Amino acid sequence: MKILLKSTLSAAGIAAISVTGVLAADDGEQSNIKELLSTYEAALNASNTNAIMQLYADDGVFMAPHSPPNIGKQAVRNAYDAVFDAITLKIDFEVDEITQVAPNWAFARTRSHGFVTINVTGDSGPEANQELFIFARTDDGAWKIARYIFSATTPPRQ
Amino acid sequence: MKILLKSTLSAAGIAAISVTGVLAADDGEQSNIKELLSTYEAALNASNTNAIMQLYADDGVFMAPHSPPNIGKQAVRNAYDAVFDAITLKIDFEVDEITQVAPNWAFARTRSHGFVTINVTGDSGPEANQELFIFARTDDGAWKIARYIFSATTPPRQ
Repeated sequence: MKILLKSTLSAAGIAAISVTGVLAADDGEQSNIKELLSTYEAALNASNTNAIMQLYADDGVFMAPHSPPNIGKQAVRNAYDAVFDAITLKIDFEVDEITQVAPNWAFARTRSHGFVTINVTGDSGPEANQELFIFARTDDGAWKIARYIFSATTPPRQ
Repeated sequence: MKILLKSTLSAAGIAAISVTGVLAADDGEQSNIKELLSTYEAALNASNTNAIMQLYADDGVFMAPHSPPNIGKQAVRNAYDAVFDAITLKIDFEVDEITQVAPNWAFARTRSHGFVTINVTGDSGPEANQELFIFARTDDGAWKIARYIFSATTPPRQ
Protein backbone atom coordinates (compact mmCIF):
# COMPACT_ATOMS: atom_id res chain seq x y z
CA MET A 1 0.00 0.00 0.00
CA LYS A 2 3.00 2.30 0.26
CA ILE A 3 4.97 3.95 -2.48
CA LEU A 4 8.33 3.37 -0.97
CA LEU A 5 11.62 1.87 -1.99
CA LYS A 6 11.20 -1.28 0.03
CA SER A 7 14.76 -2.44 -0.37
CA THR A 8 16.01 0.74 1.26
CA LEU A 9 13.50 0.52 4.07
CA SER A 10 14.41 -3.07 4.62
CA ALA A 11 18.09 -2.18 4.72
CA ALA A 12 17.28 0.49 7.28
CA GLY A 13 15.53 -2.07 9.45
CA ILE A 14 12.04 -0.66 9.03
CA ALA A 15 9.55 -3.50 9.04
CA ALA A 16 6.34 -1.57 8.77
CA ILE A 17 5.04 1.93 8.22
CA SER A 18 2.53 2.90 10.85
CA VAL A 19 1.08 6.04 9.38
CA THR A 20 -2.12 5.89 7.41
CA GLY A 21 -3.50 7.38 4.28
CA VAL A 22 -0.67 6.67 1.85
CA LEU A 23 -1.95 6.06 -1.66
CA ALA A 24 -1.80 2.70 -3.33
CA ALA A 25 1.42 2.18 -5.25
CA ASP A 26 1.55 3.87 -8.62
CA ASP A 27 4.72 2.93 -10.44
CA GLY A 28 4.08 5.59 -13.06
CA GLU A 29 4.21 8.45 -10.57
CA GLN A 30 7.17 6.89 -8.80
CA SER A 31 9.01 6.82 -12.13
CA ASN A 32 8.05 10.38 -12.93
CA ILE A 33 9.42 11.61 -9.61
CA LYS A 34 12.61 9.58 -10.01
CA GLU A 35 13.07 11.17 -13.41
CA LEU A 36 12.60 14.63 -11.88
CA LEU A 37 15.29 13.81 -9.31
CA SER A 38 17.65 12.61 -12.06
CA THR A 39 17.05 15.79 -14.01
CA TYR A 40 17.73 17.84 -10.89
CA GLU A 41 20.99 15.95 -10.28
CA ALA A 42 22.13 16.59 -13.85
CA ALA A 43 21.21 20.28 -13.66
CA LEU A 44 23.13 20.72 -10.40
CA ASN A 45 26.20 19.05 -11.90
CA ALA A 46 25.90 21.30 -14.97
CA SER A 47 25.48 24.47 -12.83
CA ASN A 48 22.37 25.08 -14.93
CA THR A 49 19.95 27.39 -13.15
CA ASN A 50 17.54 27.53 -16.10
CA ALA A 51 17.19 23.74 -16.10
CA ILE A 52 16.58 23.75 -12.36
CA MET A 53 13.92 26.43 -12.63
CA GLN A 54 11.93 24.17 -14.98
CA LEU A 55 11.60 21.76 -12.06
CA TYR A 56 10.28 24.22 -9.47
CA ALA A 57 6.66 25.14 -8.76
CA ASP A 58 5.90 28.85 -9.17
CA ASP A 59 5.58 29.15 -5.39
CA GLY A 60 8.51 26.81 -4.72
CA VAL A 61 10.69 27.30 -1.66
CA PHE A 62 14.40 26.45 -1.62
CA MET A 63 15.94 26.19 1.84
CA ALA A 64 19.73 26.08 1.60
CA PRO A 65 21.99 26.07 4.67
CA HIS A 66 23.37 29.40 5.85
CA SER A 67 20.61 31.36 4.11
CA PRO A 68 17.03 32.30 4.97
CA PRO A 69 14.37 30.44 2.92
CA ASN A 70 14.19 31.47 -0.75
CA ILE A 71 10.47 31.83 -1.52
CA GLY A 72 9.08 31.98 -5.06
CA LYS A 73 10.72 31.56 -8.44
CA GLN A 74 12.78 34.75 -8.56
CA ALA A 75 14.29 34.18 -5.12
CA VAL A 76 14.96 30.52 -5.95
CA ARG A 77 16.65 31.53 -9.21
CA ASN A 78 18.84 34.09 -7.46
CA ALA A 79 19.86 31.52 -4.85
CA TYR A 80 20.94 28.91 -7.42
CA ASP A 81 22.80 31.57 -9.42
CA ALA A 82 24.69 32.49 -6.23
CA VAL A 83 25.47 28.82 -5.54
CA PHE A 84 26.81 28.25 -9.05
CA ASP A 85 28.84 31.46 -8.93
CA ALA A 86 30.55 30.13 -5.81
CA ILE A 87 30.93 26.39 -6.37
CA THR A 88 30.83 23.60 -8.93
CA LEU A 89 29.27 20.29 -7.89
CA LYS A 90 29.91 16.77 -9.06
CA ILE A 91 27.52 14.69 -7.01
CA ASP A 92 25.26 11.63 -7.18
CA PHE A 93 21.86 11.34 -5.54
CA GLU A 94 20.71 8.20 -3.78
CA VAL A 95 16.93 7.95 -3.36
CA ASP A 96 16.00 6.56 0.06
CA GLU A 97 12.24 7.04 -0.19
CA ILE A 98 9.53 8.34 -2.50
CA THR A 99 6.08 8.53 -0.89
CA GLN A 100 2.97 9.79 -2.65
CA VAL A 101 0.48 11.05 -0.06
CA ALA A 102 -2.24 12.53 -2.29
CA PRO A 103 -3.03 12.58 -6.00
CA ASN A 104 -1.02 15.79 -6.39
CA TRP A 105 1.43 15.60 -3.49
CA ALA A 106 4.47 13.45 -2.76
CA PHE A 107 7.76 13.70 -0.93
CA ALA A 108 11.19 12.19 -1.31
CA ARG A 109 14.12 11.67 1.00
CA THR A 110 17.54 11.42 -0.63
CA ARG A 111 21.24 11.57 0.16
CA SER A 112 23.90 12.95 -2.16
CA HIS A 113 27.65 12.67 -2.19
CA GLY A 114 30.54 13.64 -4.42
CA PHE A 115 32.84 16.61 -4.74
CA VAL A 116 32.58 20.36 -4.58
CA THR A 117 35.02 22.80 -6.16
CA ILE A 118 35.34 26.37 -4.94
CA ASN A 119 35.32 28.31 -8.20
CA VAL A 120 37.48 31.22 -7.07
CA THR A 121 40.31 29.07 -5.71
CA GLY A 122 39.90 25.81 -7.61
CA ASP A 123 40.10 23.93 -4.33
CA SER A 124 38.07 20.71 -4.35
CA GLY A 125 36.83 18.51 -1.55
CA PRO A 126 34.26 15.88 -0.62
CA GLU A 127 30.60 16.88 -0.27
CA ALA A 128 27.78 14.88 1.33
CA ASN A 129 24.24 16.00 2.09
CA GLN A 130 20.77 14.75 2.96
CA GLU A 131 17.69 16.17 1.26
CA LEU A 132 13.94 16.36 1.79
CA PHE A 133 11.78 17.28 -1.22
CA ILE A 134 8.04 17.97 -1.27
CA PHE A 135 6.55 17.69 -4.77
CA ALA A 136 3.28 19.07 -6.10
CA ARG A 137 1.63 18.10 -9.36
CA THR A 138 0.41 21.00 -11.45
CA ASP A 139 -2.81 21.13 -13.44
CA ASP A 140 -0.99 19.83 -16.53
CA GLY A 141 0.11 16.71 -14.66
CA ALA A 142 3.80 17.58 -14.19
CA TRP A 143 5.45 17.05 -10.81
CA LYS A 144 7.32 20.10 -9.54
CA ILE A 145 9.52 20.84 -6.53
CA ALA A 146 7.27 22.67 -4.07
CA ARG A 147 9.58 22.71 -1.03
CA TYR A 148 13.20 21.58 -0.79
CA ILE A 149 15.71 21.62 2.05
CA PHE A 150 19.07 19.95 2.53
CA SER A 151 21.89 19.84 5.03
CA ALA A 152 25.39 18.40 5.22
CA THR A 153 25.91 14.92 6.63
CA THR A 154 29.64 15.57 6.99
CA PRO A 155 31.11 16.72 10.34
CA PRO A 156 31.11 20.46 11.05
CA ARG A 157 34.16 22.49 10.14
CA GLN A 158 36.48 22.93 13.09
CA MET B 1 -8.86 26.80 -0.47
CA LYS B 2 -5.41 26.64 1.07
CA ILE B 3 -4.39 25.96 4.64
CA LEU B 4 -1.69 28.56 4.77
CA LEU B 5 -0.76 31.46 6.95
CA LYS B 6 -1.84 34.08 4.48
CA SER B 7 -0.25 36.97 6.32
CA THR B 8 3.14 35.30 6.03
CA LEU B 9 2.65 34.52 2.38
CA SER B 10 1.51 38.01 1.74
CA ALA B 11 4.55 39.38 3.54
CA ALA B 12 6.72 37.16 1.37
CA GLY B 13 5.14 38.59 -1.74
CA ILE B 14 3.38 35.42 -2.83
CA ALA B 15 0.14 36.38 -4.51
CA ALA B 16 -1.11 32.95 -5.53
CA ILE B 17 -0.37 29.30 -5.04
CA SER B 18 -0.27 27.44 -8.33
CA VAL B 19 -0.23 23.86 -7.18
CA THR B 20 -3.45 21.93 -6.96
CA GLY B 21 -5.04 19.47 -4.63
CA VAL B 22 -4.67 21.26 -1.32
CA LEU B 23 -7.52 20.49 1.04
CA ALA B 24 -10.10 23.03 2.01
CA ALA B 25 -9.12 24.96 5.12
CA ASP B 26 -9.70 23.13 8.38
CA ASP B 27 -8.93 25.37 11.31
CA GLY B 28 -9.13 22.43 13.69
CA GLU B 29 -6.25 20.58 12.06
CA GLN B 30 -4.28 23.79 11.69
CA SER B 31 -4.65 24.35 15.44
CA ASN B 32 -3.69 20.77 16.23
CA ILE B 33 -0.51 21.08 14.20
CA LYS B 34 0.34 24.44 15.74
CA GLU B 35 -0.07 22.86 19.16
CA LEU B 36 2.27 20.03 18.16
CA LEU B 37 4.86 22.61 17.10
CA SER B 38 4.49 24.47 20.41
CA THR B 39 4.93 21.24 22.32
CA TYR B 40 8.02 20.45 20.26
CA GLU B 41 9.47 23.89 20.99
CA ALA B 42 8.90 23.45 24.72
CA ALA B 43 10.43 19.95 24.71
CA LEU B 44 13.53 21.20 22.87
CA ASN B 45 13.97 24.03 25.37
CA ALA B 46 13.58 21.55 28.23
CA SER B 47 16.09 19.08 26.68
CA ASN B 48 13.30 16.50 27.13
CA THR B 49 13.81 13.55 24.78
CA ASN B 50 10.84 11.64 26.23
CA ALA B 51 8.47 14.50 25.46
CA ILE B 52 9.85 14.76 21.92
CA MET B 53 9.42 11.04 21.32
CA GLN B 54 5.68 11.39 22.04
CA LEU B 55 5.50 13.64 18.98
CA TYR B 56 7.21 11.33 16.49
CA ALA B 57 5.62 8.64 14.31
CA ASP B 58 6.98 5.14 14.88
CA ASP B 59 8.74 5.32 11.52
CA GLY B 60 9.72 8.96 11.95
CA VAL B 61 12.94 10.27 10.42
CA PHE B 62 15.00 13.04 12.03
CA MET B 63 17.55 14.67 9.72
CA ALA B 64 19.95 16.83 11.72
CA PRO B 65 22.93 18.60 10.13
CA HIS B 66 26.28 16.84 10.29
CA SER B 67 24.69 13.43 10.80
CA PRO B 68 23.20 10.80 8.51
CA PRO B 69 19.39 10.50 8.72
CA ASN B 70 18.07 8.99 11.96
CA ILE B 71 15.38 6.50 10.92
CA GLY B 72 12.85 5.02 13.34
CA LYS B 73 12.11 5.77 16.98
CA GLN B 74 15.24 4.28 18.58
CA ALA B 75 17.58 6.14 16.22
CA VAL B 76 15.59 9.35 16.68
CA ARG B 77 15.75 8.97 20.47
CA ASN B 78 19.51 8.39 20.40
CA ALA B 79 20.00 11.45 18.22
CA TYR B 80 18.06 13.78 20.55
CA ASP B 81 19.86 12.34 23.59
CA ALA B 82 23.16 13.16 21.86
CA VAL B 83 21.99 16.68 21.06
CA PHE B 84 20.89 17.35 24.65
CA ASP B 85 24.14 15.90 26.02
CA ALA B 86 26.03 18.42 23.93
CA ILE B 87 23.92 21.58 24.00
CA THR B 88 21.06 23.40 25.73
CA LEU B 89 18.66 25.37 23.55
CA LYS B 90 16.56 28.41 24.32
CA ILE B 91 14.75 29.09 21.06
CA ASP B 92 11.43 30.28 19.66
CA PHE B 93 9.73 28.89 16.56
CA GLU B 94 8.04 31.09 14.01
CA VAL B 95 5.53 29.26 11.79
CA ASP B 96 5.76 30.41 8.17
CA GLU B 97 3.36 27.87 6.68
CA ILE B 98 1.14 24.93 7.59
CA THR B 99 -0.33 23.10 4.59
CA GLN B 100 -2.57 20.04 4.82
CA VAL B 101 -2.32 18.04 1.59
CA ALA B 102 -4.40 14.96 2.46
CA PRO B 103 -6.67 13.88 5.31
CA ASN B 104 -3.70 12.34 7.11
CA TRP B 105 -0.77 14.34 5.74
CA ALA B 106 0.45 17.89 6.22
CA PHE B 107 3.68 19.82 6.24
CA ALA B 108 5.00 22.92 7.96
CA ARG B 109 7.77 25.33 7.29
CA THR B 110 9.20 27.19 10.27
CA ARG B 111 12.16 29.27 11.38
CA SER B 112 13.63 29.24 14.87
CA HIS B 113 16.00 31.57 16.65
CA GLY B 114 17.45 32.05 20.10
CA PHE B 115 20.53 30.86 21.94
CA VAL B 116 22.52 27.68 22.28
CA THR B 117 24.79 26.83 25.21
CA ILE B 118 27.60 24.28 24.86
CA ASN B 119 27.11 22.18 27.97
CA VAL B 120 30.74 21.21 28.49
CA THR B 121 32.11 24.75 28.30
CA GLY B 122 29.10 26.86 29.24
CA ASP B 123 29.74 29.03 26.19
CA SER B 124 26.56 30.51 24.74
CA GLY B 125 25.81 32.05 21.38
CA PRO B 126 23.04 32.89 18.93
CA GLU B 127 21.28 30.10 17.04
CA ALA B 128 19.01 30.41 14.01
CA ASN B 129 17.59 27.64 11.84
CA GLN B 130 14.95 26.87 9.24
CA GLU B 131 12.85 23.71 9.47
CA LEU B 132 10.65 21.55 7.26
CA PHE B 133 8.27 19.12 8.98
CA ILE B 134 6.10 16.45 7.35
CA PHE B 135 3.27 15.30 9.61
CA ALA B 136 1.19 12.12 9.42
CA ARG B 137 -2.02 11.48 11.31
CA THR B 138 -2.22 8.11 12.98
CA ASP B 139 -5.29 5.87 13.21
CA ASP B 140 -6.25 7.46 16.53
CA GLY B 141 -6.35 10.91 14.95
CA ALA B 142 -3.14 12.34 16.43
CA TRP B 143 -0.71 14.22 14.21
CA LYS B 144 2.87 12.99 14.50
CA ILE B 145 6.20 14.10 13.06
CA ALA B 146 6.88 11.74 10.15
CA ARG B 147 9.91 13.49 8.63
CA TYR B 148 11.84 16.47 9.96
CA ILE B 149 14.92 18.30 8.71
CA PHE B 150 16.51 21.59 9.63
CA SER B 151 19.55 23.67 8.79
CA ALA B 152 21.20 26.82 10.06
CA THR B 153 20.29 30.17 8.54
CA THR B 154 23.36 31.78 10.11
CA PRO B 155 26.58 32.20 8.08
CA PRO B 156 29.01 29.27 8.06
CA ARG B 157 31.78 29.21 10.64
CA GLN B 158 35.01 30.62 9.28
